[in-house]
Amino acid sequence: MTLFADSGTARFSINQETVKQLPLPDLARACAELGVGGVGLWRAPVQEYGVEATARLMADEGLTVTSLCRGGFLTAADPEERGRALDDNRAAVDEAAGIGTDTLVMVSGGLPPGDRDLHGARERVADALAELAPYAAERGVRLAIEPLHPMFASDRCVVSTLGQALDLAERFPAEQVGVVVDTYHLWWDDRAPAGIARAGEGGRIAAFQVADWCTPLPAGVLLGRGQLGDGSVDFRAWRKLVDEAGYTGWTEVEIFNEALWARDGREALAETAERFRAHVL
Amino acid sequence: MTLFADSGTARFSINQETVKQLPLPDLARACAELGVGGVGLWRAPVQEYGVEATARLMADEGLTVTSLCRGGFLTAADPEERGRALDDNRAAVDEAAGIGTDTLVMVSGGLPPGDRDLHGARERVADALAELAPYAAERGVRLAIEPLHPMFASDRCVVSTLGQALDLAERFPAEQVGVVVDTYHLWWDDRAPAGIARAGEGGRIAAFQVADWCTPLPAGVLLGRGQLGDGSVDFRAWRKLVDEAGYTGWTEVEIFNEALWARDGREALAETAERFRAHVL
Repeated sequence: MTLFADSGTARFSINQETVKQLPLPDLARACAELGVGGVGLWRAPVQEYGVEATARLMADEGLTVTSLCRGGFLTAADPEERGRALDDNRAAVDEAAGIGTDTLVMVSGGLPPGDRDLHGARERVADALAELAPYAAERGVRLAIEPLHPMFASDRCVVSTLGQALDLAERFPAEQVGVVVDTYHLWWDDRAPAGIARAGEGGRIAAFQVADWCTPLPAGVLLGRGQLGDGSVDFRAWRKLVDEAGYTGWTEVEIFNEALWARDGREALAETAERFRAHVL
Repeated sequence: MTLFADSGTARFSINQETVKQLPLPDLARACAELGVGGVGLWRAPVQEYGVEATARLMADEGLTVTSLCRGGFLTAADPEERGRALDDNRAAVDEAAGIGTDTLVMVSGGLPPGDRDLHGARERVADALAELAPYAAERGVRLAIEPLHPMFASDRCVVSTLGQALDLAERFPAEQVGVVVDTYHLWWDDRAPAGIARAGEGGRIAAFQVADWCTPLPAGVLLGRGQLGDGSVDFRAWRKLVDEAGYTGWTEVEIFNEALWARDGREALAETAERFRAHVL
């Protein structure tokens, strides 16, 4: 079964975490068989499988690695902790280069324990980017700042809006630092459309990710991302915005959802591809 | 025990829902004994106790009713449902006037089932405000639009930022429609400080509410509001912003938290007042 006759046109990429029950070789095989041309990978399974082995596997199955998730967590105020975070991010850059993707997704990090200064934490992210961006650029990797939904501001990502992400990214050359447009995180924001236009003009859209917004949110909220079509997001409207902003890259479906993980991985992947066709294309 | 020697200076108001285990007369008595001068009330317990009886109780204990929660839920597209919502909001205005408060907090409502058009829903809120605001003003009541955290955008309130609330409020005279500044909903937003200044210049700050941001969020997220000092909010910074914007009204503590509700109500109220002194004053 091939879902996309022309996978290049469909620009559909599956983020690995969406079907994390599939081991890497099974995922690669399933993608090839279904006509899915792109995959977004995560560091832990890539490290487990091996960076070089992953690169070979992707090449053998004819897959494009659309991004590596993720670097970031750069908000520590403690110098030692900050040094460890920078080292870890350089390793993430090396891994991205090793598996042949030009995009490292950056989740900035939350507030350190007891810290209530969001602005200060965002400035520490900027300082860290200044150290990391040239290192990444030398290896052909662009840092892609992902604004996360404001409900993650304290414990996961102090960058909550596309505007904030662009304010950070624009301190650096566009080929070094871009932004991630993710419908799950931005769908509520009436300023995001203008932000997408601004990002497009500056050549800053490094990735476009989609997931649906569903309620009620589960405890801890991290695993609330919904299957395409199950929630409140008007995907075609968002796709049109990134298209009009000049984005020609992949659309990566990234869903963290226990119900999806509990199912057969190939079946979940096929459903996701069908939903993409029905709601995004 | 009197916690505030000069309750007028402290401007501390307890929102009834924070200690909802206390029946209205017990709450009024406890406030009077602790030196708490203001209370924010909710429609259901006021209706149960009676509007006139509530007004007498508040007067007898020397309490100011700082707001009534809540009107709103004005996003229905169906004409009949919309008509019922408008009727219910006129009743809420009458109750606010009846208990002697000039502030009716408005929670706009979420998306109707299957609807994905946030902008359209916000416009229906504006249309409804145009019908309700003159009615309320004739009765000495101002509608106070409360932006709720973006995590409530689909199911509770399509107005997610102070900027959006002001865009709505400013279509009407300032004495008819204001906004609520609530730290729980706005703390993540780097544009909120400018919004507070804008609201102050226009005389639009109808209420200032405080609760802390704590994670992990519980399932459904509604009851995640934290006791002052337990989370990530820098209350003094926000209080300074509203002070500098010229706000001279009450600060209402509004926390929905099952751990707080499980405790003795007077003890929970006393702790909240102490936390207010420690973190907000």
